[in-house]
Amino acid sequence: MYKVKVFVTLKESVLDPQGSAVKGSLHRMEYNEVQDVRIGKYLELTIEDSVQDLDKSVREMCEKLLSNPVIEDYRYEVEEVVAK
Amino acid sequence: MYKVKVFVTLKESVLDPQGSAVKGSLHRMEYNEVQDVRIGKYLELTIEDSVQDLDKSVREMCEKLLSNPVIEDYRYEVEEVVAK
Repeated sequence: MYKVKVFVTLKESVLDPQGSAVKGSLHRMEYNEVQDVRIGKYLELTIEDSVQDLDKSVREMCEKLLSNPVIEDYRYEVEEVVAK
Repeated sequence: MYKVKVFVTLKESVLDPQGSAVKGSLHRMEYNEVQDVRIGKYLELTIEDSVQDLDKSVREMCEKLLSNPVIEDYRYEVEEVVAK
């Protein structure tokens, strides 16, 4: 089995209103050292060994469903898990 | 400056309806090799060098605002960024 960790983030040029709201809250809580907050998604996919081409499969899933390529970037890490 | 990457995930024992929905969609798209999907949040905080105790500060922010300790776990990675 593979555990694939996918990180989906807004592109640099795209405004992040959710991140700005969190930054505002942190400042109101006196965490003035926080300069910026950007919020993304983190997904963990568990994928069977039987998959033909893991990288192709993950890239397709990211591009078709998990991210919006117009405004988001994604990257992923693969970990092999030994079944118990 | 520090860049702190925070990962907030649902605890193992907590149901993830959003993850189940994404898994269902992936199966309908014929990605039947996907066994499980769990969805979390990924945050990037940019924090000034002037911070007194970075770890304490990040832990507090995670516990008070960024995660819900009842149902979520968090972990973070710190990267030092050299200002240009």
